[in-house]
Amino acid sequence: MFEDITTPTLLLHEDICRGNIRRMAEKAQQLGIRLRPHMKTPQAIEVARWLRDYGIEAITVSSFHMAEYFAADGWDDITVAFPVNIREMEAIKKLSENIRLNVTVENVEGARALQERLRQGVQVWVKINIGNNRTGLLPEDTDRLDVLLDYLAQADRLHFCGFMGHAGQSYADRGEAAIAQTHRQSLAAMQALRKRYQGRFPQLEISVGDTPTASVMDRFPGVDELRPGNFLFYDLMQWQIGACTTADIAVAMACPVVAKHPDRHEIVLYGGAVHFSKDYLTFSDGTPFYGLAAQWGEDGWELLQPEAYMRKLSQEHGILRLPKALIDDIEIGSLMMILPVHSCLTANLMKGYRLMDGKSIEMMPF
Amino acid sequence: MFEDITTPTLLLHEDICRGNIRRMAEKAQQLGIRLRPHMKTPQAIEVARWLRDYGIEAITVSSFHMAEYFAADGWDDITVAFPVNIREMEAIKKLSENIRLNVTVENVEGARALQERLRQGVQVWVKINIGNNRTGLLPEDTDRLDVLLDYLAQADRLHFCGFMGHAGQSYADRGEAAIAQTHRQSLAAMQALRKRYQGRFPQLEISVGDTPTASVMDRFPGVDELRPGNFLFYDLMQWQIGACTTADIAVAMACPVVAKHPDRHEIVLYGGAVHFSKDYLTFSDGTPFYGLAAQWGEDGWELLQPEAYMRKLSQEHGILRLPKALIDDIEIGSLMMILPVHSCLTANLMKGYRLMDGKSIEMMPF
Repeated sequence: MFEDITTPTLLLHEDICRGNIRRMAEKAQQLGIRLRPHMKTPQAIEVARWLRDYGIEAITVSSFHMAEYFAADGWDDITVAFPVNIREMEAIKKLSENIRLNVTVENVEGARALQERLRQGVQVWVKINIGNNRTGLLPEDTDRLDVLLDYLAQADRLHFCGFMGHAGQSYADRGEAAIAQTHRQSLAAMQALRKRYQGRFPQLEISVGDTPTASVMDRFPGVDELRPGNFLFYDLMQWQIGACTTADIAVAMACPVVAKHPDRHEIVLYGGAVHFSKDYLTFSDGTPFYGLAAQWGEDGWELLQPEAYMRKLSQEHGILRLPKALIDDIEIGSLMMILPVHSCLTANLMKGYRLMDGKSIEMMPF
Repeated sequence: MFEDITTPTLLLHEDICRGNIRRMAEKAQQLGIRLRPHMKTPQAIEVARWLRDYGIEAITVSSFHMAEYFAADGWDDITVAFPVNIREMEAIKKLSENIRLNVTVENVEGARALQERLRQGVQVWVKINIGNNRTGLLPEDTDRLDVLLDYLAQADRLHFCGFMGHAGQSYADRGEAAIAQTHRQSLAAMQALRKRYQGRFPQLEISVGDTPTASVMDRFPGVDELRPGNFLFYDLMQWQIGACTTADIAVAMACPVVAKHPDRHEIVLYGGAVHFSKDYLTFSDGTPFYGLAAQWGEDGWELLQPEAYMRKLSQEHGILRLPKALIDDIEIGSLMMILPVHSCLTANLMKGYRLMDGKSIEMMPF
């Protein structure tokens, strides 16, 4: 089945990915929420086309370059979920003239650049920090919020849509109870904002979108839009958080075995930091790992038992630690299947996928 | 000077890089050692051409794909410093017919695949684990060494060149004394091997090549070849190890400022894990950082004082923590210059450079 694989290759299982899309689309539909998946995870027009089969018509991206790539394949309602970069006004201007472009602002400087440099109108979301402390205005910082919303209200090219947040702190959660608490706290902040500003902006919407809460929670009170991305593929991080099972993970790296070191219970794979990224997780004793070996089971990927983990990555080498008894059966030149820690960064490095039927899918060029 | 930069851009200072090449080439020449720089760091034929100006005629790479890329630009003596992957025999065969190809083996399976599948001869280096515990045979594992060398001795297509090691454990060293100890121990292992096998193989050579020892040490007793790569650019990791100064660092990322959060002493840069990689260093108190802000000084890059560090990276966002007093002077839309933690992985992600005069250099396509 994989005889023609010669170097590290990222396998993508279309049925698993479609299952992930279908479940999330059904949930959003039942709740009456718009699903706008974040395409920074797959970065591939072919995967984006699968979304259409589940009634999805709007997407999220993380750069204007990525927006251009998907717009060229017919997507005409795209949100760039990154604070507007005023050095890119030419690209923004061009996009705003061709599609329904949604941008993210969190300061008057960004809003003013849009107002002064665009010809067409643009949809503007105000970025709120709902606990992730990455970026966005704090919900309680009503002074800065008022100044920004005052500016938006009088800017004729800027159509204020509502508040956008990303509860990325959920990535530190483990288990449903912790995720539920993050969910309650982050939505409470958004609900307070809606209450404060909806008299003035009756149409304002609330958009949130981390994969853990989107996957695990069933109620999204006050939410109009969901923007998860990682759920398309999932990965070991989501599995450890409790947002998926290993059978939901749609990507795995096929890595050639190049050396065996039974004395130290390790084999060496062709598959390193330039394939997986350096993102890691830790076992309960604090030991870091960069991937786990899996085999194809009845319902999808299953972890090897006892566990075989990527102990260390250098540029091209991956060191897989596994029980000595397993090593004897592994041949130099065979393939090991490794589930990635963080599928978004792994896909970004690999720049393409191989479907299980052997077909290749290309990703966005650099 | 940088008005046309709109998105994260990896700046490469040609004079600094050439200075790094010149110093290493002079050292190798004085010691009578062949310098075979590792091109996995720059991955660019233009940078490789600079090597020619300093008398360098042989290079190291980390994949056969990379070997093909440099061979197409006229390099005809290339070492692939990665255990031979027997799934790639077609590529190896083709390369061995076109250039003087040096491959790395550490097991009979790899050697046998070469002997049976190649038509032309190939230069074979035996990979030794000189303390890094990544891969290679242990110097004291003379049983396996004897078996492998017996195989090589009778294989008419395999020309045994000698022993190759990489003292990557030097990356954990801090300061000259620690580096010197790593150097002594790793070379002692190689010298013992030479003593044991040179009666049988009088021409055997010793090849080593980590950037810390190559940069800091002045004596390389018994060494015939040096294969450092990172020294071409250096980075904060080498600076923390003590292998370079910040003025030796040839690459810096220009990142647009997209948001300011003076209340928490942070600004948000366009520049994240898909630009820098997730490699990090730690301050003495254990706090991790993913890059440090710098400014152009008289002799090269100088760190901002007091220090401004990348606290966290997500896919496109970089969170720069810096003294509040500095934040007031930084404008939304301006550029911050960030020195990378690990220039090899950063370059691999960026897929290209901008020289200080504005000229672009492309890297190896994926």
